[in-house]
Amino acid sequence: MRNAGSSLDSFWAVVPAGGSGTRLWPLSRAGAPKFLHDLTSSGRTLVQSTWDRLVPLSTAERLLLVTGEGHADAVRGQLPQLERGNLLLEPSPRDSMAAIGLAAAVVARRDPDAVVGSFAADHLIPDARAFGGAVRQAVAVAQEGHVVTIGIQPTSAATGFGYVRTGEPLAVDGAPDAVRATGFTEKPDASTAAQYVASGEYRWNAGMFVARADVLLGHLAGQLPQLHAGLLELAEAHEDLSAHKAAAVVERVWPTLTKIAIDHAIAEPVAAAGGVAVVRGAFSWDDVGDWDALASLVPDLGSGADVRVLGDMESVVTQDTTGVVVPRGHRTVAVIGLADVVVVDTEDAVLVTTRARAQEVRQVVEALRARGRADLL
Amino acid sequence: MRNAGSSLDSFWAVVPAGGSGTRLWPLSRAGAPKFLHDLTSSGRTLVQSTWDRLVPLSTAERLLLVTGEGHADAVRGQLPQLERGNLLLEPSPRDSMAAIGLAAAVVARRDPDAVVGSFAADHLIPDARAFGGAVRQAVAVAQEGHVVTIGIQPTSAATGFGYVRTGEPLAVDGAPDAVRATGFTEKPDASTAAQYVASGEYRWNAGMFVARADVLLGHLAGQLPQLHAGLLELAEAHEDLSAHKAAAVVERVWPTLTKIAIDHAIAEPVAAAGGVAVVRGAFSWDDVGDWDALASLVPDLGSGADVRVLGDMESVVTQDTTGVVVPRGHRTVAVIGLADVVVVDTEDAVLVTTRARAQEVRQVVEALRARGRADLL
Repeated sequence: MRNAGSSLDSFWAVVPAGGSGTRLWPLSRAGAPKFLHDLTSSGRTLVQSTWDRLVPLSTAERLLLVTGEGHADAVRGQLPQLERGNLLLEPSPRDSMAAIGLAAAVVARRDPDAVVGSFAADHLIPDARAFGGAVRQAVAVAQEGHVVTIGIQPTSAATGFGYVRTGEPLAVDGAPDAVRATGFTEKPDASTAAQYVASGEYRWNAGMFVARADVLLGHLAGQLPQLHAGLLELAEAHEDLSAHKAAAVVERVWPTLTKIAIDHAIAEPVAAAGGVAVVRGAFSWDDVGDWDALASLVPDLGSGADVRVLGDMESVVTQDTTGVVVPRGHRTVAVIGLADVVVVDTEDAVLVTTRARAQEVRQVVEALRARGRADLL
Repeated sequence: MRNAGSSLDSFWAVVPAGGSGTRLWPLSRAGAPKFLHDLTSSGRTLVQSTWDRLVPLSTAERLLLVTGEGHADAVRGQLPQLERGNLLLEPSPRDSMAAIGLAAAVVARRDPDAVVGSFAADHLIPDARAFGGAVRQAVAVAQEGHVVTIGIQPTSAATGFGYVRTGEPLAVDGAPDAVRATGFTEKPDASTAAQYVASGEYRWNAGMFVARADVLLGHLAGQLPQLHAGLLELAEAHEDLSAHKAAAVVERVWPTLTKIAIDHAIAEPVAAAGGVAVVRGAFSWDDVGDWDALASLVPDLGSGADVRVLGDMESVVTQDTTGVVVPRGHRTVAVIGLADVVVVDTEDAVLVTTRARAQEVRQVVEALRARGRADLL
């Protein structure tokens, strides 16, 4: 039996840092997406918190981050300890399979026995210790050849998350919370979600996949051989070629990569064949999907009021108001007599809505796009 | 019988431009009060509209404006045709009797037969023609020795305005709408206001007082002889002394002036003695007291939506929203799913409230004052 300490020796963390975070507009922008922001006044941005959570498990040498070329400078600025060769840049978004697969291919060249774990850059996991425990279990299960997802205990019948169904326990040493995954469901409707949660058999799929690099790449080769070949070529270029020559390979190969999520590319088909495990995580998690979610997550920093302030409290004056106020425009924000309101103030745009209507922020972003206001997106 | 044309030959307009417009914060500030703003997207500020309404009645030579020293430059900028000697500056606010009395004393030195009419700089009167007709009647009545107020037909049982009670008709040639005033009531409670409106006997007191300068100053001499003497001395200094010597008089006399509204100083006691008349004005009027009032006054400029925009429509994106949005911060304002909302965006402060709570803006201003944020007031 491996002990918990040794099981992380081969663990490599991969952080896909993508997404535009449209629903957190106007704070989150195409040029400064969600992961670059400190959304909970913790003092660290989401990608920094992700780094803080993973480095104790992987070491900095074994943490790779994949992001868009346009975010390279911001990421380097926020993560000065990220190693130069561990930042993989995407010329354009090609969804999560390309991002994670590329990182796995790079890792496989450096460490053939590696176990890779993929963790989004913009999720919120306050309990790093419990998270670490789940990762240790997932690594132990991955060593046995499974693709492992860490499943989150649902706290509500959310319709905005994917669900994974849990089956019989897997008898893996060091992984008491591991069970077989018997299927994935994308965002269900409300009654299905309620049924899932009531059954106790389902977990939220937080997109945390852990697998041996060779296992992951083997599944990819079987499911999507062309994508697999392209990613291997890109990984070889990244590792062995001069920057100039590598760029030529990227320019040629990148546009040919299949745009597909890892869930569809690997998790679903492999689960159907019995090859996916779930480690039942014992930690709270949130993907901070919209202002409504965020309003629940911002701590009450002692304002004594019912309104949560994400930013400088001195900038906010409220009266008989609940909800969340985000003063990020270096201005004073005054709110009177509104319940569950959302007020987000930035340098060039201000949003006013309610928690219940927070999902509709996307439509405002679309309206601005239609008006040609790319400067605000 | 004088005809309507000749009755205005002796008419002098006085515009007291004071007040901080706290309830229209954050657009209206101590440094830039309500009268300096174009509150209805008419293309002219309130004080400019007041000028436009009065000059055809008085001529520019016979229009005096009284304002705080801090607003002198702004007023000169907005009213370039205002004559230099017709701008009277207050070192500190001394309420309306001092402002109007000083102007009347200055006018009396220039034209002993003058009729002065006082009209606030920050009221909204869309129908200039009907207003002019009422002023002509008021001047005719004032020629007979009455103090005249132009009373506004109430359109609701407003509790934010003063009321004047109308008595028997006065048989003055050229003034068919003139009646005796039998008393004034300051802002009544709701049931009293409802009773007033139902009776048909009451008019809103819009603070428009018209009287012969000698009559006004005579009443002032009788009621408040010290204030009267101080104002005569200030008027003499303004008209006859060098700027340097006049300043010394202002410095000595101004702080001694009694702080009192013209309503209490003259209108109420003189009405009790039967010396006040009401001309029943046939025009709509609003003092634009708060954002709720303003929301009713902003025209629908063809946005097709139920939200009124006071400013650049291109700066505003709304969805399922009613109320008023004031984009004056050179930024984009997005509002989703709020009814009767008030959103006022300025360079250094944004206000979010509802029309129903608009009165409470004053409390926010007080809270900011308590925090020492004089920069925002």
